[in-house]
Amino acid sequence: MKIAVDAMGGDYAPEEIVKGAVQAAEENIAEIILVGDKEAIARHLPSNRAGSRIEIVHAAQVVDMDEPPAVALRRKKDTSIATATRLVKEGKADAVISAGSTGAQMAAAHIILGRIKGIQRPAIATVFPTRRGAKLILDVGANADCKPQHLVEFALMGSIYAEKILEISHPKVGLLNIGTEETKGNELTQTAYRLLKESSLNFAGNVEARDIPSGIVDVVVCDGFVGNVVLKFAEGLAGEMLELIKQHLAQSLITRLGAALAFPALKRIKKIMDYTEYGGAPLLGVEGVSIICHGSSKAKEIRNAIKGAARGVESRYVERIREFVAKGEGADA
Amino acid sequence: MKIAVDAMGGDYAPEEIVKGAVQAAEENIAEIILVGDKEAIARHLPSNRAGSRIEIVHAAQVVDMDEPPAVALRRKKDTSIATATRLVKEGKADAVISAGSTGAQMAAAHIILGRIKGIQRPAIATVFPTRRGAKLILDVGANADCKPQHLVEFALMGSIYAEKILEISHPKVGLLNIGTEETKGNELTQTAYRLLKESSLNFAGNVEARDIPSGIVDVVVCDGFVGNVVLKFAEGLAGEMLELIKQHLAQSLITRLGAALAFPALKRIKKIMDYTEYGGAPLLGVEGVSIICHGSSKAKEIRNAIKGAARGVESRYVERIREFVAKGEGADA
Repeated sequence: MKIAVDAMGGDYAPEEIVKGAVQAAEENIAEIILVGDKEAIARHLPSNRAGSRIEIVHAAQVVDMDEPPAVALRRKKDTSIATATRLVKEGKADAVISAGSTGAQMAAAHIILGRIKGIQRPAIATVFPTRRGAKLILDVGANADCKPQHLVEFALMGSIYAEKILEISHPKVGLLNIGTEETKGNELTQTAYRLLKESSLNFAGNVEARDIPSGIVDVVVCDGFVGNVVLKFAEGLAGEMLELIKQHLAQSLITRLGAALAFPALKRIKKIMDYTEYGGAPLLGVEGVSIICHGSSKAKEIRNAIKGAARGVESRYVERIREFVAKGEGADA
Repeated sequence: MKIAVDAMGGDYAPEEIVKGAVQAAEENIAEIILVGDKEAIARHLPSNRAGSRIEIVHAAQVVDMDEPPAVALRRKKDTSIATATRLVKEGKADAVISAGSTGAQMAAAHIILGRIKGIQRPAIATVFPTRRGAKLILDVGANADCKPQHLVEFALMGSIYAEKILEISHPKVGLLNIGTEETKGNELTQTAYRLLKESSLNFAGNVEARDIPSGIVDVVVCDGFVGNVVLKFAEGLAGEMLELIKQHLAQSLITRLGAALAFPALKRIKKIMDYTEYGGAPLLGVEGVSIICHGSSKAKEIRNAIKGAARGVESRYVERIREFVAKGEGADA
């Protein structure tokens, strides 16, 4: 198993990316191909190169965060993300991970790997923790404007991913909507509801956003605008609530004592809410495993994403989506 | 000041609604007109009728929660919500509040009070607490499908409401989007961005959902689908987080002691997150003050909504929106 890691993408690249890759190699999670500026990478590699389970592939260019991704990829042929993605295309790596520009990673996956035949819109899925176990939500940002058929594709791909990676058999799919009744919602969800109901998926109907955190369904489907809002809002609200809790706990002597005693538990909760623990977000619907990491990823998150990528490859979710769509059981059925 | 209260709407109607109304009357917040089944209401009224600051207007019918609102209003002329709204139209009451079907309340407001001239789409606004003070988000559910121009109307009405009720001068308006750059978003937000930039409002650009809870802007504008998702997700996530915190705090003896000491603070936080404390959600853009309460409202929330309605009337936000639109300074300018 070989994972291509974009060493130049992310707020803490290349140092933390290289560190995380070394960690993964040392733990024997996978062999690593670090892609990027040779010298910059080498500077952060230990002399033993983690027992030669790490190689470097040089790529001279990077995509800047403020560059329009498609333009960047057309102009620069040797960016680290394009080179890393090409390794997957050429069979030299089994998966690619990056903490760089999400747009560039998506563009590289579209152009170099291509879409799975029958899938019109690849989507970004995110695993989130609930008291009923890990659940999936998609799309969380790849497609700001969607047609009903796209939501059916998301439901299909999400179901397969949940089955393969979260090990949920016959996962329950919910359509994110503003009411549970069939007639509720906007034009998009009203039509998508009918299509999902007719599909072969285990469709549980509409779910309201208030039921997402409790894990009422296994796969939550929505357009990429709404999904992205939900994801970022969760991030913001969790942070604010912990802040509030800390402030309030500190208000009296009694609660200050309570806070001191409770602090380890509060920190544990923050970790539970932290989706970066879950190995990155897969871009589903392209011909290969491409895992998107948060731009703020440090070594630990990169190591987790490499592990997530390795599991993704082993689970053969890409092949399963391809088979499913080819059989016409899914979206286009 | 007279507030018409739909005594029959809500999960705990009429008992809790009447109780809340009595409380408001006793505190001299306003004179109350309780609208609904005369006998059912009378059963919960104290014998002194709060010093006759409460009167009853009989309405024989109610809108059931599962009835299509527009149909219900056409078929039943004597529902409590229609009768209460008619009191405002006829000048016999200054405002109406209800914890019943939101759809029916909106339909009644549209049909009986009518839209403010120049406003195409009335919107529901909700006040939410942040560490930078109370802020406003709209639309949170009146319009599942919006055009860019509608978002400009929301921004205009929200600005006026924030100025009048939250007492924020020249409120900063943010467009909820999935990136801060001007070019980000879906077709709706991309066009709305341009319109807002050209408007006379204090437009601060795009805001990401992660920045909503910290109160980065005074008025957050979005379509009613997205706003409703955000609102309900906040409700669900706050509940789950408190649940998680309680569970985690209870895991060891030390943290259990911490939890016992911290519990009063946790309860206080739940109260802060509770938007029903803030006096209900105004339906902006109709010719009168119509305040929507959560279906689960009890006496306290009803009392707060009556207070909110009274402040709304005093602030003359309806008149201010009308003037603003008539001068053509706003949406259509």
